[in-house]
Amino acid sequence: MSHEVLGYAAQSPESPLAPYRFVRREPRTDDVEIRIEYCGVCHSDLHTARNDWQNSVYPVVPGHEIIGRVTRVGAGVTRFKPGDRVGVGCMVDSCRVCNPCQRGLEQYCVEFPAVTYNGRDRHDHSPTYGGYSEQIVVSEAFVLRVPEGLDPAGTAPLLCAGITTWSPLRYWKVGEGRKVAVVGLGGLGHMALKLASALGAEVTLFTRSPGKEADARRLGADHIVLSTDAAQMTAAAGRFDLILDTVPYVHDLNPYLPTLAIDGTLVLVGYLGDLNPVLNTVPLIMGRKSVAGSLIGGIAETQEMLDFCGRHGITSDIELIDMATINDAYERMLKSDVKYRFVIDMASLKG
Amino acid sequence: MSHEVLGYAAQSPESPLAPYRFVRREPRTDDVEIRIEYCGVCHSDLHTARNDWQNSVYPVVPGHEIIGRVTRVGAGVTRFKPGDRVGVGCMVDSCRVCNPCQRGLEQYCVEFPAVTYNGRDRHDHSPTYGGYSEQIVVSEAFVLRVPEGLDPAGTAPLLCAGITTWSPLRYWKVGEGRKVAVVGLGGLGHMALKLASALGAEVTLFTRSPGKEADARRLGADHIVLSTDAAQMTAAAGRFDLILDTVPYVHDLNPYLPTLAIDGTLVLVGYLGDLNPVLNTVPLIMGRKSVAGSLIGGIAETQEMLDFCGRHGITSDIELIDMATINDAYERMLKSDVKYRFVIDMASLKG
Repeated sequence: MSHEVLGYAAQSPESPLAPYRFVRREPRTDDVEIRIEYCGVCHSDLHTARNDWQNSVYPVVPGHEIIGRVTRVGAGVTRFKPGDRVGVGCMVDSCRVCNPCQRGLEQYCVEFPAVTYNGRDRHDHSPTYGGYSEQIVVSEAFVLRVPEGLDPAGTAPLLCAGITTWSPLRYWKVGEGRKVAVVGLGGLGHMALKLASALGAEVTLFTRSPGKEADARRLGADHIVLSTDAAQMTAAAGRFDLILDTVPYVHDLNPYLPTLAIDGTLVLVGYLGDLNPVLNTVPLIMGRKSVAGSLIGGIAETQEMLDFCGRHGITSDIELIDMATINDAYERMLKSDVKYRFVIDMASLKG
Repeated sequence: MSHEVLGYAAQSPESPLAPYRFVRREPRTDDVEIRIEYCGVCHSDLHTARNDWQNSVYPVVPGHEIIGRVTRVGAGVTRFKPGDRVGVGCMVDSCRVCNPCQRGLEQYCVEFPAVTYNGRDRHDHSPTYGGYSEQIVVSEAFVLRVPEGLDPAGTAPLLCAGITTWSPLRYWKVGEGRKVAVVGLGGLGHMALKLASALGAEVTLFTRSPGKEADARRLGADHIVLSTDAAQMTAAAGRFDLILDTVPYVHDLNPYLPTLAIDGTLVLVGYLGDLNPVLNTVPLIMGRKSVAGSLIGGIAETQEMLDFCGRHGITSDIELIDMATINDAYERMLKSDVKYRFVIDMASLKG
């Protein structure tokens, strides 16, 4: 009782993304079937399409910033009905019973969550295919409500870039009277500026490019610190309660640690790998500072973030593209040539 | 109106410690004059005597785990009187007005605290000389009350080894129902076992030496994990809310990070320097884990720790030595040949 849908897939690390027909399951009792309207383009999509993390299973249908309309629901679904506008992020299932799942931290499920693409369905063990497609079928527990009034295309990136920055901002209690700095002004960084500013914090952007100042201020930054300017870095010593580091490639953290306040934390959300050059422990010990990591966010927290964005009118700054231009978009993304997130208009899929 | 006292000093990085006469100031209005009975021997004493940190100013009179009796007090002193048993730790002054000082975090004073030796007096800028001496004069704000009933020699190491482990145990809320691991069983590590156990936590020692098990259990460990045994390390995955890493030399933190629970923290209290080999961020991100540092503890917190030790009958396991054997003690300390702290009997100074 499954049915064929159209998507875009990479068939190997070297092959460009191209049209691909595959099967979506019929909705199970708890499933929601969604016609996809928009899908954001995340760096992880490119990493997985090209097997940068050596864990890709082909074909790869990327996409985990999904916005669409409900078309059908299983008999047991209570929270959604056909016509509802909904979202799906990086996860489509988890064990639901472990301690992290029970605490709403499905991203840290002890059995690892079923991810939206390049994962496995927990029931039939079939590969998961993501949002670069006309349709997706997801258990209602992993489907988000999208607030009225938000532009649906600009809402798509909230499902990954939004929650990835929101979760640490909330966990480390960012709000009025707190000083936050953001490292990196890309898809994640521009959301971090918007969200931290809306939470009432005093927000600083660290950047290596003086040219980003006007944009950063428009996005919510109160201050800009040029990280290449030693005098500006010295002047920022001891300032920040939280530094949200969104840079997705290896870089030196040592210059940022002295800018943390006592008990301050630098949270990595973008970079998975070895910390080169080596960290020096002196600034950590001389101020009870921490270096931490954070992965996306839980489902309840994602809903909280969407609702917050609904109340504050926050969406991502996007460039809407046609599905057929995805390979060009990847090349531009590698050059950081996007302000600040590509979103695929899925109406273009059959165009 | 100063007066000459006898101590032991290093005159250069290469010279052994030897008798040295120097001047202590007459008590100022807020000063307490203390006849030193016991002084613990900390790794920092050796590092400073030998200029390992390239900041030693000679002569160096080490010693910051000081227990003694009050002999005189300045006119403005209200909390101490001659005959009181008191302690002095790593700090003898700080600016007292900055935000950290106001919060009882004198160790993170923005002007840096005046340290007990190899520092400078904040008023006359004279060098500070430590506890390897018959007497010390310290502002009452930095003098600790020593609870009745504690062995004074075993109490001396609480002033550095005790507070350095107590402070992170308290800051990271160790107590009933919490799982704590300690890396390293030396002066700091053995205090960490005693204090964490008395706080009600479930305590594990990581060690590379199977022979330490009986001693670790006697000191308070509920479990021992051999860090050289891959199966034991795997079995400990996701277990600890806090890992207190007391190792004073460079070592690999990566094997310990997977043993942290979600939201767990590894705190470095012993090692100042570059983290070699490089840290990998994956375990941090895949569980919102942190690597942090912590430096000794504040004065109010040190008093809290001493009072707690008084109620629980906790002192350090020590080997009492004569002042004249200090150079041999340093050599043995370098080989970790002490259970678990040398303490100098200052009555031997004139012996």
